[in-house]
Amino acid sequence: MTRFRFAPIPASLPSVVPFTGPETLERRSGIPFRARLGANENGFGPSPRAVEAMIRATAGIWKYGDPDSHDLRHALAARHGVAPENVMVGEGIDGLLGLLVRLMVAPGEVVVTSDGAYPTFNYHVAGFGGRLVKVAYRGDAEDPQALAAAAHRHGARLVYLANPDNPMGSWHPGRRIEAMLDDLPETALLVLDEAYAEFAPDEAIPAIGPEDARVIRFRTFSKAYAMAGARVGYAIGPAELIAGFDRIRNHFGMNRAAQIGALAALEDRDWLAHVRAEVDAARDRIAGIGRSNGLDALPSATNFVALDTHRDGAFAGALLRALADRGVFVRMPGVAPLDRCIRVSCAPEPELAAFAEALPGALRALA
Amino acid sequence: MTRFRFAPIPASLPSVVPFTGPETLERRSGIPFRARLGANENGFGPSPRAVEAMIRATAGIWKYGDPDSHDLRHALAARHGVAPENVMVGEGIDGLLGLLVRLMVAPGEVVVTSDGAYPTFNYHVAGFGGRLVKVAYRGDAEDPQALAAAAHRHGARLVYLANPDNPMGSWHPGRRIEAMLDDLPETALLVLDEAYAEFAPDEAIPAIGPEDARVIRFRTFSKAYAMAGARVGYAIGPAELIAGFDRIRNHFGMNRAAQIGALAALEDRDWLAHVRAEVDAARDRIAGIGRSNGLDALPSATNFVALDTHRDGAFAGALLRALADRGVFVRMPGVAPLDRCIRVSCAPEPELAAFAEALPGALRALA
Repeated sequence: MTRFRFAPIPASLPSVVPFTGPETLERRSGIPFRARLGANENGFGPSPRAVEAMIRATAGIWKYGDPDSHDLRHALAARHGVAPENVMVGEGIDGLLGLLVRLMVAPGEVVVTSDGAYPTFNYHVAGFGGRLVKVAYRGDAEDPQALAAAAHRHGARLVYLANPDNPMGSWHPGRRIEAMLDDLPETALLVLDEAYAEFAPDEAIPAIGPEDARVIRFRTFSKAYAMAGARVGYAIGPAELIAGFDRIRNHFGMNRAAQIGALAALEDRDWLAHVRAEVDAARDRIAGIGRSNGLDALPSATNFVALDTHRDGAFAGALLRALADRGVFVRMPGVAPLDRCIRVSCAPEPELAAFAEALPGALRALA
Repeated sequence: MTRFRFAPIPASLPSVVPFTGPETLERRSGIPFRARLGANENGFGPSPRAVEAMIRATAGIWKYGDPDSHDLRHALAARHGVAPENVMVGEGIDGLLGLLVRLMVAPGEVVVTSDGAYPTFNYHVAGFGGRLVKVAYRGDAEDPQALAAAAHRHGARLVYLANPDNPMGSWHPGRRIEAMLDDLPETALLVLDEAYAEFAPDEAIPAIGPEDARVIRFRTFSKAYAMAGARVGYAIGPAELIAGFDRIRNHFGMNRAAQIGALAALEDRDWLAHVRAEVDAARDRIAGIGRSNGLDALPSATNFVALDTHRDGAFAGALLRALADRGVFVRMPGVAPLDRCIRVSCAPEPELAAFAEALPGALRALA
């Protein structure tokens, strides 16, 4: 017998999750993945100095983390040449995106994004009663001009853009993002998701002053720093906006070992360079595997590659399932025409070899 | 130049934090704490098996955690004799309380709690625009009858009760909580915070069926399991309510090593018994230190002791600062008459010895 009732906004939400985890898929199928290439995790692993720091931090896990993430926040500020007041550390970009939407969007207000862009952002917008307006990708890239135009048309409060883009791996030059800021209406804040920025060419990073009140940027330790399971992300933005998070965030939400590990990872620049080189090579390897099988790699500035099947979403979906049957976990974009591709994460050679081995059979099974 | 504006609810919120972290206090004063006795952390530490499991998990931190926390959730369900669908794992009780408020309370709706009870719960209620109604403690304990009466009066959506109580350490027999459920109005869900339940006598735990739609219970790995910095808590409640969390939670929010460590900690019952014995002894030790200095320990079913100064909040506050000056971190209740007490967390002997050494001088400094 139900007695409780949900508040109106949650009551109106569907019971769907943005992503099904690979462990869930394994439990459903009974087939463990020998290649985990679907979540843009980074199997080249975290800096050994970060691993060592996290191991040393484990005995002290009885203490709450520092609610200010002081040391990490100050190090990030120094790295980005901004003030500590311009940086907010949180439980991954996902958690911070949720807080940003809550901070900025009243029920019924409009948020603009691209049709096929990050589903978790959309999940948070819906979760706080925002109204999503989606514009189409253009040439497998998000379209800054169309996003800005839609923001004007709808008086949007937020405009989401990932640069480089997920799920296609494309990127815009930083100056194009800078120009987009001039095009936005006064009502709108640009949510610039730079989760994959460390893999991108330098010219992909826009020159934006930390106190530019038109934009908030998001970075993460989940991708280039290979610490997805630690849950550390951060936002860079004007101090007044960053301070807003303190009104609503879970102040003691950070894992203590993760804070310490992220700081060590940030300081290990050599490891980051090593990971970048490995990812470059893995992108070429994935493209080669695709080519051998009639799938063409889209250019990527990330740690994943979209492989074009030159068919449609039904075909790509069937290919995904055929790969899963063979122990290979990959994902695909959610909407047409992007969903003609499958998205394969960079990984060490044994996992890519498993993909190379599985792909021909998976394709044959669909023929 | 500000361009952005916050949504109405966040715009109305003050920029206060529920608790200032000990690291922040250390940075302000320049004096590191030699005794960290203010946050009810558990310095007896986590199970060595949990530490070992977390260390082993560190190399795999490049993977996201399982968004279903499947293994931990199933183990918790088995431990509590409920179905996995009755259990929701989240980033500590704090995070789960925020989600619950969001799930249940529309702006302007009423939530009832005790004046002086857990500030972080109040922070979340305010954060989602709920209206807090507070009833007084009665004899240094939360007052189930007064809470239920206020819930009737105001048509409350949630009623918060911690058993055992924080910050006083008092507890009610489980049958009193069961009786309270019968007293609540149909509109109201009981939020039963059992963060300290593992320290309490068996009879403090109410017999509540998992599908009882009048109540949701919260447990944590932060206290008895000594994993505050890992951020693992869980809720037990009716499956339909528990499923509601999936509509709004940060699905990939859990730290992967923390999930693995919590499972190992849960399985180490011997360590839990060891910690309980250490905490029992530490409570007596704290009471003894208090007694030697004219402060009387209130009975406690938790891992902390409220020491009654027999003065007022101004005196207790000054005593807190005098202890901090001597490198001892303790906290105190926030409202009168509870704030005549200071709250001292159980800890290993070196930290309690530091408290014993510092207290006489701190009291003399106030005389």
